[in-house]
Amino acid sequence: MSPFTGSAARTSQWRHLRVERADGIATVTLARPDRLNALTFGAYADLRDLLAELSRERAVRALVLAGEGRGFCSGGDVDEIIGATLSMDASELMDFNRMTGQVVRALRECPFPVIAAVHGVAAGAGAVLALAADFRVADPTARFVFLFTRVGLSGGDMGAAYLLPRIVGLGHATRLLMLGEPVRAPEAERIGLISQLTDEGRADEAAQALARRLADGPALAHAQTKALLTAELDMPLSAAVELDASTQALLMRGEDYAEFHAAFTGKRPPKWRGR
Amino acid sequence: MSPFTGSAARTSQWRHLRVERADGIATVTLARPDRLNALTFGAYADLRDLLAELSRERAVRALVLAGEGRGFCSGGDVDEIIGATLSMDASELMDFNRMTGQVVRALRECPFPVIAAVHGVAAGAGAVLALAADFRVADPTARFVFLFTRVGLSGGDMGAAYLLPRIVGLGHATRLLMLGEPVRAPEAERIGLISQLTDEGRADEAAQALARRLADGPALAHAQTKALLTAELDMPLSAAVELDASTQALLMRGEDYAEFHAAFTGKRPPKWRGR
Amino acid sequence: MSPFTGSAARTSQWRHLRVERADGIATVTLARPDRLNALTFGAYADLRDLLAELSRERAVRALVLAGEGRGFCSGGDVDEIIGATLSMDASELMDFNRMTGQVVRALRECPFPVIAAVHGVAAGAGAVLALAADFRVADPTARFVFLFTRVGLSGGDMGAAYLLPRIVGLGHATRLLMLGEPVRAPEAERIGLISQLTDEGRADEAAQALARRLADGPALAHAQTKALLTAELDMPLSAAVELDASTQALLMRGEDYAEFHAAFTGKRPPKWRGR
Repeated sequence: MSPFTGSAARTSQWRHLRVERADGIATVTLARPDRLNALTFGAYADLRDLLAELSRERAVRALVLAGEGRGFCSGGDVDEIIGATLSMDASELMDFNRMTGQVVRALRECPFPVIAAVHGVAAGAGAVLALAADFRVADPTARFVFLFTRVGLSGGDMGAAYLLPRIVGLGHATRLLMLGEPVRAPEAERIGLISQLTDEGRADEAAQALARRLADGPALAHAQTKALLTAELDMPLSAAVELDASTQALLMRGEDYAEFHAAFTGKRPPKWRGR
Repeated sequence: MSPFTGSAARTSQWRHLRVERADGIATVTLARPDRLNALTFGAYADLRDLLAELSRERAVRALVLAGEGRGFCSGGDVDEIIGATLSMDASELMDFNRMTGQVVRALRECPFPVIAAVHGVAAGAGAVLALAADFRVADPTARFVFLFTRVGLSGGDMGAAYLLPRIVGLGHATRLLMLGEPVRAPEAERIGLISQLTDEGRADEAAQALARRLADGPALAHAQTKALLTAELDMPLSAAVELDASTQALLMRGEDYAEFHAAFTGKRPPKWRGR
Repeated sequence: MSPFTGSAARTSQWRHLRVERADGIATVTLARPDRLNALTFGAYADLRDLLAELSRERAVRALVLAGEGRGFCSGGDVDEIIGATLSMDASELMDFNRMTGQVVRALRECPFPVIAAVHGVAAGAGAVLALAADFRVADPTARFVFLFTRVGLSGGDMGAAYLLPRIVGLGHATRLLMLGEPVRAPEAERIGLISQLTDEGRADEAAQALARRLADGPALAHAQTKALLTAELDMPLSAAVELDASTQALLMRGEDYAEFHAAFTGKRPPKWRGR
């Protein structure tokens, strides 16, 4: 647990997501399989709040984001979200769209790696959730569809116009966001959208194995690696090397770095403490 | 037509480019086939002024940039540009080089997608025009040659040192800009420089088909997608998600988003209005 | 020689690196083959100081960075660096980590192209040195290992979290920096980490040939191309096209641009002067 907990209570029950924790790994499952895990207002709010809570704790060292049933996530629910937003005023629309952006920022800024386990469709907001993860572990049924323009909206939703060019380059990103066509697993792997391609039906299992490996590793080193990757997209080289220098100086005074050296000279595997 | 037209008259005749308009699509053809469409001072100036005029109107929803004859564009004309610049003073050279940069900015900032239809050579400034487009539709004869260092100039011409690393990555971009070697269609496709590879001789036709599809779609959604892709290359994540939120809030109050929902619930295709 | 030399003397002997100069090419060899060219404090300091000295001169037009023996560079020496840093205080650790960052900045900012000739392992700081080069010429035995997390440190070392996403995209970069797994030559080529793949055992030879070609070319054009590629990663498009314009205006008043035109009209190869 972080030493800096205040008055805010932990949420005792997440009503719009399935949340499981086991030995350093949090698994968050979108679990409306009859609606292809379409996102509701409640699911967005729970993702935002859950990531904030987990970021304050120290128990979670890796998070898996998965979808139950036939696919990962079909995006915002046509009835519950598209229908409802049609009668919202400007202020309510800003609240909604800011919330979805906060989920993406939380995924990029939380102090543990996030692994999206993708099978079947990852569409709209579902594709962006996968995009905001650190790893996309996907099986051959996976297809990513940035379908925003097909509903009359901007392809730049929830940071997609920021993230996608930085993952697959501006040429592919323009094509995908402008046209909203599906990207199937072979193309997704070829352009760098998939981190690890698994056998069919094995994305969840492979994501858990990767999470296990990360959770058993040097957690502070992983957290800082993620923080630097996120921050240095927005920094000039001169500032980035200075940030790297102070981060490494900090970690060189940490327990895990000393443990590596002791283990290496003792010819044994290191026991990571995450500090 | 945009409601915000002032005193400036529309240009009645473009003398250095062939410009055709048909049902939302503007087709701009570099048409000096005997010189492989080498660019002249007049052609640069016309591209700059044409893009400014088209950006003020509302009739154009997609622009195709094509080359007549054996290739797309061989770049700045050796006689009319290289020869002439040799006797220019510093102020005139700044005027010329600023103008070419303004063409690239106009291609990136105009409120409609730009499709370069590339066959044969796209060299020098011709390669950068293609680079600044949103889509590069190319046939197997296409070759891109960033030949600037081979004439004693910097590979960073007209924003090439900004755009190319963001499309193909810094490693490939360094190699291409520093050495000035041709990139043929298979490599261009592999590294993400080509958006759509067509059969031989079919680039113009495929570019028109893509333009048709874009022009028939939700034009405001396309315009904003392009604007966000362009702007968010230069923004931090935190600002990008805020820009996405306000853009989506705006579009969620637009006609096309409501039309999508009505069409979806009515089980019919949407009729896009572009608002 | 640059006209702007002051009181600082040239270093007469580089004790921690092998430095050879021949006809515009500097070849810097990491030469501790019994330790797989593991870096020492002295080697980092020499790289920093050598690059500063070479940047003040005008004689060097290309630099090759190579490793003697079985591999390119195994990174920081486990005994001499990891062991020693364990007893350093915060100020000393900042000095060390700033120095390594200065080497990377010097590689990116020196006014000549840098070619890493990679065979065998390029691990840890060795992988980042290769990453900071303009060209990575590698043979099929090359493998890049960003192993920082495996010693309990951040994957963002010496600018790696800045450079790697800009070379291979954020998805691949996250995987490589977070997990510290080796990237072998075929994958490295596929994701854009290798500039030129050679036959086995031919990386040094191919790097020298590329250096020869660059050194015989228009050196000022190459220097400015590199400077713009480096600077424009950190600039918005609007500023980048302005920088391109003033750079091109400068080079259009240079000798090499006039020489190109004279050679072209005279139907002879240009004789580059590098001005």
